[in-house]
Amino acid sequence: MISEKMKPLVNNNSAIRAMFEEGKRLASIYGAENVYDFSLGNPNVPAPAAVNQAIKDILDEEDSTFVHGYMSNSGYEDVRATVADSLNRRFGTHFNQDNILMTVGAASGLNIILKTILNPGDEVITFAPYFVEYGSYVRNYDGVLVVVSPDTETFQPNLDEFEQKITPRTKGVIINTPNNPTGVVYSAGTLERMADILRAKEKEYGTAIVLISDEPYRELAYDGVEVPYVTGFYDDTVICYSYSKSLSLPGERIGYLVIPDELQDSKEVFNAATIANRVMGCVNAPSLMQRVIKRCIDEQVNLEAYDKNRNLLYNGLKDLGFVCIKPQGAFYLFVKSPEADEKKFCEACKKHNVLVVPGSSFACPGYVRISYCVSYGQIERSLPAFAKIAAEYGL
Amino acid sequence: MISEKMKPLVNNNSAIRAMFEEGKRLASIYGAENVYDFSLGNPNVPAPAAVNQAIKDILDEEDSTFVHGYMSNSGYEDVRATVADSLNRRFGTHFNQDNILMTVGAASGLNIILKTILNPGDEVITFAPYFVEYGSYVRNYDGVLVVVSPDTETFQPNLDEFEQKITPRTKGVIINTPNNPTGVVYSAGTLERMADILRAKEKEYGTAIVLISDEPYRELAYDGVEVPYVTGFYDDTVICYSYSKSLSLPGERIGYLVIPDELQDSKEVFNAATIANRVMGCVNAPSLMQRVIKRCIDEQVNLEAYDKNRNLLYNGLKDLGFVCIKPQGAFYLFVKSPEADEKKFCEACKKHNVLVVPGSSFACPGYVRISYCVSYGQIERSLPAFAKIAAEYGL
Repeated sequence: MISEKMKPLVNNNSAIRAMFEEGKRLASIYGAENVYDFSLGNPNVPAPAAVNQAIKDILDEEDSTFVHGYMSNSGYEDVRATVADSLNRRFGTHFNQDNILMTVGAASGLNIILKTILNPGDEVITFAPYFVEYGSYVRNYDGVLVVVSPDTETFQPNLDEFEQKITPRTKGVIINTPNNPTGVVYSAGTLERMADILRAKEKEYGTAIVLISDEPYRELAYDGVEVPYVTGFYDDTVICYSYSKSLSLPGERIGYLVIPDELQDSKEVFNAATIANRVMGCVNAPSLMQRVIKRCIDEQVNLEAYDKNRNLLYNGLKDLGFVCIKPQGAFYLFVKSPEADEKKFCEACKKHNVLVVPGSSFACPGYVRISYCVSYGQIERSLPAFAKIAAEYGL
Repeated sequence: MISEKMKPLVNNNSAIRAMFEEGKRLASIYGAENVYDFSLGNPNVPAPAAVNQAIKDILDEEDSTFVHGYMSNSGYEDVRATVADSLNRRFGTHFNQDNILMTVGAASGLNIILKTILNPGDEVITFAPYFVEYGSYVRNYDGVLVVVSPDTETFQPNLDEFEQKITPRTKGVIINTPNNPTGVVYSAGTLERMADILRAKEKEYGTAIVLISDEPYRELAYDGVEVPYVTGFYDDTVICYSYSKSLSLPGERIGYLVIPDELQDSKEVFNAATIANRVMGCVNAPSLMQRVIKRCIDEQVNLEAYDKNRNLLYNGLKDLGFVCIKPQGAFYLFVKSPEADEKKFCEACKKHNVLVVPGSSFACPGYVRISYCVSYGQIERSLPAFAKIAAEYGL
């Protein structure tokens, strides 16, 4: 029954599902309190109180057929204008509602733009370590994902290898900053050099290469680090944003695409992306949540909670002898495995009821991802377990 | 910039967009009160009051990270169980939560099941007149839509032609009952014969043919007509449901797939469909609206309002001499054009500020679709305009 294209996805899925089931199994044996599940990226910090208040106010103040009804496939015009204004205020951009397309989260935004631009065989470059679903998204449109190997010193993108991997078939480049799984933020210098390379290659090959910036973690940055706005560096840029993390609404599936005027064929791309949103079956981003975004445009989750987690876990693991760069954003630590085969390390952790994700799931073996979007208490309770693991490895 | 596959969609889109723009243009000249726009299928009856109350109660009673958070890609287990129980109560089925996959509306459900089962070149049969997006959905997965020509006497499916058009490449059949655009409901007898044909062809060719029932209008049936539940007729059935019309929540994008145990490889199909939901970028159906469905499972919009509209418009047009079968469900009339080229008839209507959709948009030229999900007042005010149109055609 299953299509040939879905078969490998079904087979690969079992590894992740197995970890999920293992967590449930361990919790049933040892109690949830005594299982330290760092495997998921599901925010534990609640949405700002203003979100639920906005929902109630909308229901009291706006008409039901408007709030729950169809609108333009690209979203309510006033919501899109509010998003554009907010970006302009914060990043000095000059967008308007015709640059903003409301989407069913960033994952749907990525699919929309890939469907809009990819022909079969077109190449899309990304940088290891990367979110494993990028491969599925690109294959959905018969594209080919080309992976630049990781720079494990800094986890900044390896731009020399990037330059070499651009071909006349390169149609897109996906970046993710702040990064899942490393927490690294790309600097302005990095983006400038990346843009220079892209412009030169567009000129050399006479092609258009779209820089697709996947930004669900944009608002999750610590220590005052700047997360540069990518459209300022390179004209052929499309931003995929999600409120999943900035407002802790991952289940609601609400985000947007930014398609700037500077993008080649911008109006045609916006129009085609709007149609892609419809024919892929989303039709439009969930309506009530769009209305919420208008009222909560300046809201943000409590970042301090994540920052406290980050410092506790980072310092705790470092003191135990683990090796890890300090993340500047998102809510993950990407820790070097004490043995070359990080899957064995994951197994060793599991014996202490500690669940972490192998780096090979992000095309970066030898590392593991530890999500700190968990309770502070879980991190505190887990440190003695990490101490035992460190001792086993003689750290 | 635009992919080859998107280009025809962009070009075809302009006709519908033109009608939308024309409506706005006419309203700005003559006033919205004096433009009779029957072109859209956007419910005008508000959601039941219980929906907004349920939203407020959920926000007060359930935890924020639960209500707005990730859950299984197939949806909250308790919501899926509630949907299964409701179906079992109403239709004598025996589903459980493992047969229900919550989706971003029925359009997304259709895309999910087509992605799950279609290989390039596979054929999907549907019956004219049909919702034009079916073609886009099937082409998304490189399938081929095969159209059975309409029986314009009854608008029941032409089953003789259907039987002839089934080939070894037929992987799916899409039906839509109550039907957009005709309002026709398929009888138990029709479904029985359709199932007999499918079973015989599955046996003859040694293939699996999935009957995909697109049911956004299931609850919109009048005069006590029964809308038979399709899984009872044929094992290889998948139901695509939406609450867009039954609860007037089209903008919220909430619906579900039913994947019965009787379907061949049922468990594998459910698993693959769950993964398809994720990798297409929806990830999961909007979380708050899933919670709403649990609390509003027995709610329904005020059908009387649509029924009143139906009778006023049907009788009004019939008295004027227009030819139309009386719809048993949905909120559309499919009226015979008084001249062979219905596009010219649409133009003639437009001169009286009456906007209707040509049947060729549903692969059924010679007819027009008139949506009666509008205010009763609009229908009342429009009848003198229809009278003038009738007079022009000498009806």
